Amino acid sequence: MEKIVNLCKRRGFIWQGSDVYGGMAGTWDFGPLGVTLKKRIMDEWWKFFVEEREDMYGVDAAIIMNPRTWEASGHTKTFSDPLVECKECHQRFRADKLGEFGADVETKALVAAKVKCPSCGKMNWSEVRQFNMMFETLVGATGEDEAYLRPETAQGIFTNYKNVVDTVYPDLPFGLAQQGKAFRNEISPRDFVFRSREFSQMEIEYFVNPTTWEEQFEKLLASCREFLREKMGLPAEAIHELEVPENDRAHYSKRTVDIEFDYPIGREELMGIAYRTDFDLMNIQREAGKSMEYIVKGSTERFVPHVIEPSFGVERLLMAVLCAAYREEAVEGGETRVVLALPENLAPYRYCVSPLLKNKPELVEKAREVYATLRAKYGRVTWDDSGNIGKRYRKQDEIGTPKCVVIDFDSLEDGTVTVRDRDTMAQERVAVEKL
Amino acid sequence: MEKIVNLCKRRGFIWQGSDVYGGMAGTWDFGPLGVTLKKRIMDEWWKFFVEEREDMYGVDAAIIMNPRTWEASGHTKTFSDPLVECKECHQRFRADKLGEFGADVETKALVAAKVKCPSCGKMNWSEVRQFNMMFETLVGATGEDEAYLRPETAQGIFTNYKNVVDTVYPDLPFGLAQQGKAFRNEISPRDFVFRSREFSQMEIEYFVNPTTWEEQFEKLLASCREFLREKMGLPAEAIHELEVPENDRAHYSKRTVDIEFDYPIGREELMGIAYRTDFDLMNIQREAGKSMEYIVKGSTERFVPHVIEPSFGVERLLMAVLCAAYREEAVEGGETRVVLALPENLAPYRYCVSPLLKNKPELVEKAREVYATLRAKYGRVTWDDSGNIGKRYRKQDEIGTPKCVVIDFDSLEDGTVTVRDRDTMAQERVAVEKL
Repeated sequence: MEKIVNLCKRRGFIWQGSDVYGGMAGTWDFGPLGVTLKKRIMDEWWKFFVEEREDMYGVDAAIIMNPRTWEASGHTKTFSDPLVECKECHQRFRADKLGEFGADVETKALVAAKVKCPSCGKMNWSEVRQFNMMFETLVGATGEDEAYLRPETAQGIFTNYKNVVDTVYPDLPFGLAQQGKAFRNEISPRDFVFRSREFSQMEIEYFVNPTTWEEQFEKLLASCREFLREKMGLPAEAIHELEVPENDRAHYSKRTVDIEFDYPIGREELMGIAYRTDFDLMNIQREAGKSMEYIVKGSTERFVPHVIEPSFGVERLLMAVLCAAYREEAVEGGETRVVLALPENLAPYRYCVSPLLKNKPELVEKAREVYATLRAKYGRVTWDDSGNIGKRYRKQDEIGTPKCVVIDFDSLEDGTVTVRDRDTMAQERVAVEKL
Repeated sequence: MEKIVNLCKRRGFIWQGSDVYGGMAGTWDFGPLGVTLKKRIMDEWWKFFVEEREDMYGVDAAIIMNPRTWEASGHTKTFSDPLVECKECHQRFRADKLGEFGADVETKALVAAKVKCPSCGKMNWSEVRQFNMMFETLVGATGEDEAYLRPETAQGIFTNYKNVVDTVYPDLPFGLAQQGKAFRNEISPRDFVFRSREFSQMEIEYFVNPTTWEEQFEKLLASCREFLREKMGLPAEAIHELEVPENDRAHYSKRTVDIEFDYPIGREELMGIAYRTDFDLMNIQREAGKSMEYIVKGSTERFVPHVIEPSFGVERLLMAVLCAAYREEAVEGGETRVVLALPENLAPYRYCVSPLLKNKPELVEKAREVYATLRAKYGRVTWDDSGNIGKRYRKQDEIGTPKCVVIDFDSLEDGTVTVRDRDTMAQERVAVEKL
């Protein structure tokens, strides 16, 4: 993990947030390569789940929502972690993470298990209290209007369900998809971008006739599987589907599947898909006093749809993509080659174009020509004339560029170039017009 | 304006935020068509200013930044609006908007001008006080770490300048571009999405050798002009460039051009481009105690670059695009046709495909075929078999679809379809394979 974090920092993928000021705990900034990778992941998701399907529609809700949203959803009351303070050194911890405890852990359990403060080693705990993870802020000039930064994008979809039905009136089943930021005041943000205080989600609420939920759940699960393997290039053997047992599921959910990934930090949740019944729409119906019923077209049949929710965290997915792509290889001379074997559809650059030598104007000119052509054709093409050719290859290997195109003296005579493959290191001569 | 707002609501472009709970002042949610339009605008911007240029790099910084950011930039002290309260009805107002006042307006000026409370009509004002527009929140479990939601994306670029130089080391001039949310606790959000509390920005900080700023400013201004006219389709006659006079400019800026647009609410700022000198980097250098100097490659020349900043608000641009596109036309029968003449590159759908009659399976089948082909080829294709063909045209006119393709009985015989143009209403027969 440390190697991947260092590569991300060294090559401009991901830096800690506000790095220049010593950081801001639990936040991350994306550099030039990281922005492109993140955009590629989000764009592929949007294309796969929204644009290429007829049953999906996009929404984009505000981050600051009416606080009644969180009353209705239960977040105001229950979206909390157990917090405990060491009375000696005044460090605070998530009590359930201090051992094998549940979220309802109490101080006496810590004492019984003889848990010591990880910071000062003493054993003098405060009472455990529930700490709400929503960030609060005050809206308006009166200083009285409390609001929250949304802790999930999902509620921004549910609150727009009625407006979508009233304007677009799609046939059932249909899905509403949203990408956007969410915020959780994690007591201990950790594991690189895996658990941070500010992150991006990609969520779908899929509205179905309640009699069909099992079939629709299977179909969506199959789509998620296909997306992770075919579009994100994650290896099947690193992905695990966990049927969440009843006592671990949210009380309203009749089925939840967690898709876990073998990260270097261990097997952890990459995404989840949950059957949420009519829990959320009924909450809104009660809180807002407005009917959430759907009337089947050309019929008098009406009901509150049930919902299946596939939920992705962008950074967790990006981290899985990076971890799956990272490898080290022994190469001749006892050296180690670091390769980020990103799939071509996600790599920040698909091609790197170089002149063999940067001080030969005729090579540079020809290389610029090839560069311009490839950029116009494919986008995501980089230029590199730094160092020697071997160093350039190593750099492009590290940032995941699948192909390096090198223009040499033969190129000027026969119009062919060297194309070097990131994964096999094989080189072949290719005519420029065939690139 | 009211007609455009209604169209946006009726057709699923934009709704007030948290609409189902009666709204959340100053926030807006985008429905299916609005999401697509907003994405198209943001994608076109990214393509034009980042992907198609060699001198631009993306960054994506967190919204919650280390608070020293705002100390350094001056926002903590000075990012405020003058707030006054009516002591009779306790309504609060932006004092400078109660008449022809500056931002430094005092209560005595309101009294001298005999300004009455717009709410209750009385004249009993509190003292004017400066109200900081940054949203505050508390980060971490100690409840002591104050932080702010960023009031602009720009500082998230400046704080990453050093990391980019240290990893990518681009030649000067180069630009860092960012798209993302920003938040301002406006006392009176107003004018639809023009002034809201949560909005999206697209900003570039363009780092230059200080001796070249005038030339680089002109070039960037020309790019902005080209983008607004060619990519956003805004009419030249509705765009106005205002050279901001010295006493209206920020104290550090030696040149600022506001690009204004003739909105229905009046001529208002659409975007700005400002020469910010080395103001921001010097602030960071001082606050962080780290050198912001750039060393010219292959030379010993070093200096803190100067910066030119083109700054776009997504919602203001989207509003300009909508306003420029909206028109009403008298058509035969005394009716009015509403047309959203969006440019093809921005329209949520490029094509609408319909069978002439929905109860003829052979027409539906052929139409589904054409629909699938066009979707695979172009994306952004919608299906509509509701109502009669005239109603479908009116609906597609309102949502800005440039072409409607209709499959009729002749289509089955000769393989041609009717293509109806949104703007001219002209219809022509086109062979399916030529679409």
